[in-house]
Amino acid sequence: MEKTDVLIIGGSAGGIVAGMTARRHYKDAKVTVMRKEKEGQVLVPCGIPYIFGTVGAPEKNIMPDALLSGNNIDLIVDEATSIDREAKTVSTASGKSIGYEKLVLATGSAPIIIPIPGKDLENVFCAIKDVDYLNGLLKTLEGVKDVAIIGGGFIGLEFADEFRKRGLNVTIVEMLPHYLQLVFNEDFCTVAESRLKEAGINIMTNDKVEAVLGEKKVTGVKLASGEELKTDLVFIGLGARPNTELAQKADLQMGETRAIWVDEYGRTSDKDIFALGDCAEKSSFFTKKPSALRLASIACTEGRIVGANLFELKRRNEGVIGSFATIIGDSGVGMAGLTEAAAKAAGFDIVTSEVKTPDKHPGSMPGAKEFGVKLVFERATQEILGGQVCGGLTVGEVVNVLAALIQNRMTANQVATFQYGTHPFFTPSPIPYPIVNAAEAALLKL
Amino acid sequence: MEKTDVLIIGGSAGGIVAGMTARRHYKDAKVTVMRKEKEGQVLVPCGIPYIFGTVGAPEKNIMPDALLSGNNIDLIVDEATSIDREAKTVSTASGKSIGYEKLVLATGSAPIIIPIPGKDLENVFCAIKDVDYLNGLLKTLEGVKDVAIIGGGFIGLEFADEFRKRGLNVTIVEMLPHYLQLVFNEDFCTVAESRLKEAGINIMTNDKVEAVLGEKKVTGVKLASGEELKTDLVFIGLGARPNTELAQKADLQMGETRAIWVDEYGRTSDKDIFALGDCAEKSSFFTKKPSALRLASIACTEGRIVGANLFELKRRNEGVIGSFATIIGDSGVGMAGLTEAAAKAAGFDIVTSEVKTPDKHPGSMPGAKEFGVKLVFERATQEILGGQVCGGLTVGEVVNVLAALIQNRMTANQVATFQYGTHPFFTPSPIPYPIVNAAEAALLKL
Repeated sequence: MEKTDVLIIGGSAGGIVAGMTARRHYKDAKVTVMRKEKEGQVLVPCGIPYIFGTVGAPEKNIMPDALLSGNNIDLIVDEATSIDREAKTVSTASGKSIGYEKLVLATGSAPIIIPIPGKDLENVFCAIKDVDYLNGLLKTLEGVKDVAIIGGGFIGLEFADEFRKRGLNVTIVEMLPHYLQLVFNEDFCTVAESRLKEAGINIMTNDKVEAVLGEKKVTGVKLASGEELKTDLVFIGLGARPNTELAQKADLQMGETRAIWVDEYGRTSDKDIFALGDCAEKSSFFTKKPSALRLASIACTEGRIVGANLFELKRRNEGVIGSFATIIGDSGVGMAGLTEAAAKAAGFDIVTSEVKTPDKHPGSMPGAKEFGVKLVFERATQEILGGQVCGGLTVGEVVNVLAALIQNRMTANQVATFQYGTHPFFTPSPIPYPIVNAAEAALLKL
Repeated sequence: MEKTDVLIIGGSAGGIVAGMTARRHYKDAKVTVMRKEKEGQVLVPCGIPYIFGTVGAPEKNIMPDALLSGNNIDLIVDEATSIDREAKTVSTASGKSIGYEKLVLATGSAPIIIPIPGKDLENVFCAIKDVDYLNGLLKTLEGVKDVAIIGGGFIGLEFADEFRKRGLNVTIVEMLPHYLQLVFNEDFCTVAESRLKEAGINIMTNDKVEAVLGEKKVTGVKLASGEELKTDLVFIGLGARPNTELAQKADLQMGETRAIWVDEYGRTSDKDIFALGDCAEKSSFFTKKPSALRLASIACTEGRIVGANLFELKRRNEGVIGSFATIIGDSGVGMAGLTEAAAKAAGFDIVTSEVKTPDKHPGSMPGAKEFGVKLVFERATQEILGGQVCGGLTVGEVVNVLAALIQNRMTANQVATFQYGTHPFFTPSPIPYPIVNAAEAALLKL
């Protein structure tokens, strides 16, 4: 029987980082990653939408296996089929049995498919993380003109914008009143929607796809409103559900969000088995209640916690903040922490404030874009709970500034005197620097 | 006699922010800014180099007076000539006397001019914040080919890169072994220098201009090495000295850096007189010792402290971190906190670590640039003392991420589990995200 000190099941972002971190913290341990994907076939998860316009091919969106070999991590290409917790072994599809001291489940998630008629027709796709599947989608796109996207979340918008860059006629159908409504305040959703419209994407909200139409191939979709939309291809972008089959078979405890329950150190109900990333339950940084947020960056942070905790509990998971951004055309939108609506739903008494200014200075700098920031503070503690930002290509790192302020539970007064730096090409002017000015504006209401 | 509750002398960034903050915190106070510059003539300080290439004219680099009028701040265009601390009045060049309750000195700084022969010749310029003067420089540039810049700091490099964009032949003469040596670790200086070389700028280090040559106009410079350089124009970029004449005449205490001494609330030795920005002494966030850092962003942060403290002490100045970035061609370099050399000079026992990765992900994304981060941690406390970054146009906000981590005195372990977000277009991959990975690398040495 093969034996390893650390066996990580799943070779995407979280699994790789757990392995790298285990290597750093336990330098003599034998660390093994087991995954289904062959050599050179693991896709960069957040890069998947960009295969279809910007990057051009799944093969250009691959995580280098050198991340494993360069860190002295063994790779087994195989599928784990069951865990014997008593014997501390994992059985595989190829008939192997592998012994472990510590097991890490990083089994990820799979796209949610709604049970509507026609969902199995040809030319219905979703974001399956598989090179061959995505090459199939890429090939199919060459022969189509009209595309309908079900779901106006991040994944739907990113695919829409890339499909649009190929010259396709794209329509997004969202059942809620706004796109991105679950992650942004309404005013920021409106900004995102108008950017999509400017880019030539057709917007449908407050409506729902009830059936995919067609004999063999897709020819259209039928909406709840009664309308029918002619389309050659349907892309379902409704988020993901955790892959928990292996954990459930091993009788590990499940959490409220149907992901694998873990404690604050990343341990499952079996103390020698850890779980992280999309398959593992998360708790909110703000309320400590279960959270359904799933992001590659969160999986990586959890990989750094779990990898360090394997043989000695070194790091505590303080709960997910949620920090993310996306691009529409050449405009960025992003957020960290709680939106106004999420903060209210969680029972916080809040104060919000908003500031707009050019993202370069003076505003006459070429390429300057309007840069908007909205902050959410808790009234009682005056601590920052969340921030949203729209602007240009710097919003991704602005989100990280916000995340750092939030993670340190800074008060409005502390944010107002935050020691940022500025430069004409890179940032707004130091006078109206929007994060600190939004904090000042909030202080007037606190 | 005119009377105001708050009189701010100086109408650049720090003075404006002090006024805006006073207005926010003391809504009934009469707030007045007195400055020498006429309406619509205050230059955006950090934008001055960009007048000469990117922006095109001093008139396009102006701070809007609406920042005053829109905040109900009165403007007096006049020059303060003396302060009567007993009577609490300020006399002006036009013969007025203005009474104040609280006085704020935001008199800024002036370029340092070295006392070398030929410094007063025609075509010797420096960064004087005056529209007519800079229009004179702009006009002169039209008739020249070769430009020598004295000083390889930020200001010298920024002017050099803009002059180069006009097609001029530019040489920078720096007496130290490297450009930017006072603000960057040596390896980052080397990166900056190679970017300048690639841009076609001539590099001279370990040498010094001893005289400017010419009869009436500049014809060349004579170097300490004996070499003579033919040049049509000399630009002196050697930093700035605080404008303290008014404060000295009023017998206010001066600090060790020859700036106006202030306490942690921004008060001078007269408790009704505050000072901020380039004219005021700063202390280091790390050592509490005097610091000679002078930046518009620091002036603005001090404006937010002083403006809030005028009638009630609300905010304490924790000392300057120093956060800044600049651009060379389309590459960015930036830093926050202490360099390796500065940390050692301040007596810290330190550990450093460095990580490089593409600034977008996958690395095949169009426009991806190498992104390097170097972090400095104190060994005893494991707290982050500084960070440097080189990359593309996002480095300005990455510096602000670093500043937030530093300001919150996060340990290497906390930085390693910092909850950043990522996106293919905006940031490095979540796996090698360089700030957290540099912290992990440092932990191995701590």
